[in-house]
Amino acid sequence: MTKPIPARAVAFHANGADRFGVLTDDGIVDLTPEYGSHFKGLKEVIEAGALEELIAAAEGRKATFNESDVRYLSPIANPEKLICIGVNFPDRNAEYKDGTTDAKSYPSMFIRFPRSFVGHGENIVRPPESPQLDYEGEVTIVIGKAGRRIAREDAYDHIAAITLCNEGTIRDWVRHAKFNVTQGKNWDATGAIGPWLVPFRSADQLDDIKLETRVNGEVRQQDRTGRMMYDFRYIVNYISTFTTLVPGDVIVCGTPTGAGARFDPPIWLEPGDVIEVEAEGIGTLRNGVEDE
Amino acid sequence: MTKPIPARAVAFHANGADRFGVLTDDGIVDLTPEYGSHFKGLKEVIEAGALEELIAAAEGRKATFNESDVRYLSPIANPEKLICIGVNFPDRNAEYKDGTTDAKSYPSMFIRFPRSFVGHGENIVRPPESPQLDYEGEVTIVIGKAGRRIAREDAYDHIAAITLCNEGTIRDWVRHAKFNVTQGKNWDATGAIGPWLVPFRSADQLDDIKLETRVNGEVRQQDRTGRMMYDFRYIVNYISTFTTLVPGDVIVCGTPTGAGARFDPPIWLEPGDVIEVEAEGIGTLRNGVEDE
Repeated sequence: MTKPIPARAVAFHANGADRFGVLTDDGIVDLTPEYGSHFKGLKEVIEAGALEELIAAAEGRKATFNESDVRYLSPIANPEKLICIGVNFPDRNAEYKDGTTDAKSYPSMFIRFPRSFVGHGENIVRPPESPQLDYEGEVTIVIGKAGRRIAREDAYDHIAAITLCNEGTIRDWVRHAKFNVTQGKNWDATGAIGPWLVPFRSADQLDDIKLETRVNGEVRQQDRTGRMMYDFRYIVNYISTFTTLVPGDVIVCGTPTGAGARFDPPIWLEPGDVIEVEAEGIGTLRNGVEDE
Repeated sequence: MTKPIPARAVAFHANGADRFGVLTDDGIVDLTPEYGSHFKGLKEVIEAGALEELIAAAEGRKATFNESDVRYLSPIANPEKLICIGVNFPDRNAEYKDGTTDAKSYPSMFIRFPRSFVGHGENIVRPPESPQLDYEGEVTIVIGKAGRRIAREDAYDHIAAITLCNEGTIRDWVRHAKFNVTQGKNWDATGAIGPWLVPFRSADQLDDIKLETRVNGEVRQQDRTGRMMYDFRYIVNYISTFTTLVPGDVIVCGTPTGAGARFDPPIWLEPGDVIEVEAEGIGTLRNGVEDE
């Protein structure tokens, strides 16, 4: 994937503290010393409309940390909202053999708690209650400007940054109840968001980018966002119909076909597996798996 | 309902600021001057295990505000989690005529954003997109002690306070998508939480209390928590299986039969209606309705 990554704002833990800064070719420029008194984290940077200022501030500075010396954190620690879009790729819809043949007019969506996600490079966790830990690679947007009933043509003006999500799922718990996937989607530390925030500057960063998920190097999911049933503009428009979107809100925009549940028999994640979610112009989110 | 209310911790807005304190028979004792530098709100009071201290601090003090001079706020402004239990009363299960005959083994649950709720006394809002604004009266618990995989017999030790919820719903949007009720449950300002937090001191405050919802004085829902399919202990146990519950987490525990959607034809809320959700030993949550 050769599309360039314009910049990378990172949240990380090093020397005993949560920090934020910018990843450069030489390593991480820690900007907490200069900006930490103004902003608690990248969410607050985005609330202040200061993401581009943060990125500019790193230019010409020496790296403070090597990537290997830090632990990445999920970039937005405490979003007001973290919304996930369900079935959103054509083949994915066909995976749900529930007797309905028509694609629905509105997207399915659910909410996850931030504590269900770890950062880039961390292991996701398989709980003792289920062997059905599954991956879902997804492009993720971060809202930069508040709005209600945002028009589709204005939607991109409300996006501050993009990132990736492994929307890891405990598959059998998704179907515990008659309605709603809540409990299968909210196990502590079963997914990941990252590796970083890429500032959103132009439509071609989202409109039709390649998205791929690999497990132990084997391609399992591969599609292009241009094939999404509900595109990013529509998602922002639709969600903001019922709720006011605010800076720092995170929207995980749906996964291509090819999750482990799709195989016959299903292939669940196991300790030692490595999942990589990669998208053009964003980067690669990489996580291992461990047993709780 | 004659069961006494042991104490009432309130969050409110007055004189241009968000405040908290204790409602006494003479009015509201504002404790922000003394505690506001330690605690941002009642969530932080609960995190510090200081709810009983706050209540004790109000004893013997003169009231600062009349109830009529303040606007009540939802008691927990920014919970890490706000989880709602779906179908949880026997007759309610029968309202869902979806061809299944057996009661499921696990509760259905979904997540709401705090901005979908207003405080006691405020109007809930009917949006222009739908006339199907509906009420659901529910008993609500607030977690006081963190835990994962909390045993049923320990569950009550993890509850700090109880309150009420009008879990207001835009009924047609509940079924917009193939799965999940998310969008019908998350319209801005369509529900209410309050009127206050009652400290949870003994099991009989939850085990079998009467819960009633009235619209313009007419009883629409009436049941007892002793008839819940999934009792409070089970709910705390089940949710904490997959996610770590933390202080300030809010769990809305399910509504009896008799929502407006049940009537034939359905009776939706309209501007000028007054909804009262009352439970023994907790109080009455009262809200009007207005058009956006």
